[in-house]
Amino acid sequence: MPTRKASAVWEGGLKGGKGSYNVGTGSVGGEYTFGSRFGEEGGSNPEELIASAEAACYSMALSGGLEKNGTPPKKISTTAECTVENVGVGFQITTMRLDVTASVPGIDNVKFQEIASATLSGCPVSKAFAGNVKLEVNARLA
Amino acid sequence: MPTRKASAVWEGGLKGGKGSYNVGTGSVGGEYTFGSRFGEEGGSNPEELIASAEAACYSMALSGGLEKNGTPPKKISTTAECTVENVGVGFQITTMRLDVTASVPGIDNVKFQEIASATLSGCPVSKAFAGNVKLEVNARLA
Repeated sequence: MPTRKASAVWEGGLKGGKGSYNVGTGSVGGEYTFGSRFGEEGGSNPEELIASAEAACYSMALSGGLEKNGTPPKKISTTAECTVENVGVGFQITTMRLDVTASVPGIDNVKFQEIASATLSGCPVSKAFAGNVKLEVNARLA
Repeated sequence: MPTRKASAVWEGGLKGGKGSYNVGTGSVGGEYTFGSRFGEEGGSNPEELIASAEAACYSMALSGGLEKNGTPPKKISTTAECTVENVGVGFQITTMRLDVTASVPGIDNVKFQEIASATLSGCPVSKAFAGNVKLEVNARLA
């Protein structure tokens, strides 16, 4: 199975330093600092990368679940919000909240909610966070 | 504390469809398909986003650990490899391997390895994977 690569470089100390990252396929990269991660200064941060991975994985997996049900989707749009908090023993990623809108011909809402919930615990990125990050989904049919 | 956002859109079924993602700060985005995730077709995938989050978080956290030791680094370079496997009950992210080269004036290798190991289990992104993804680090002084 595939192994995916990415890299990051940090120069200097924690608060005075600066970092940059790049993913293997080369299309994605960004810069980050202590201020862009734990404050609101301009720049990227690992938590938005985690959020993008979860949103991308969830959208794809929900498509698979709906297809298996005989009701393939036209379109699934997912927004992920990832919260990092200082929990006393240091910073921790505590919650990931998904907001999903799906266009799915021929499905009723009860079945849709069942598949949306199963996808939350079953997609590979969710499974990597299980037990450590609180996962929530709010899904609706378009 | 900050909440970070990202979004993804998937259109169509699992194998015939296509997706795209964007992170909140807008600097990062990509396109992905079943073939770019589970095969070697061109495009992005959630696993390289996970790998970039881990590499970025680890590099920054190692800087903090070294600084706390009184030996702030000049530069830390981290490559992360993330493996996704079909483990029988579906796809799972099984391992994350880090390869780290650090330029750290005034530190001996024993102390450096101790801090590098502690960072592997202590950085926020690692904590989000704890117990679910096997984390490994190979660190060396430049």
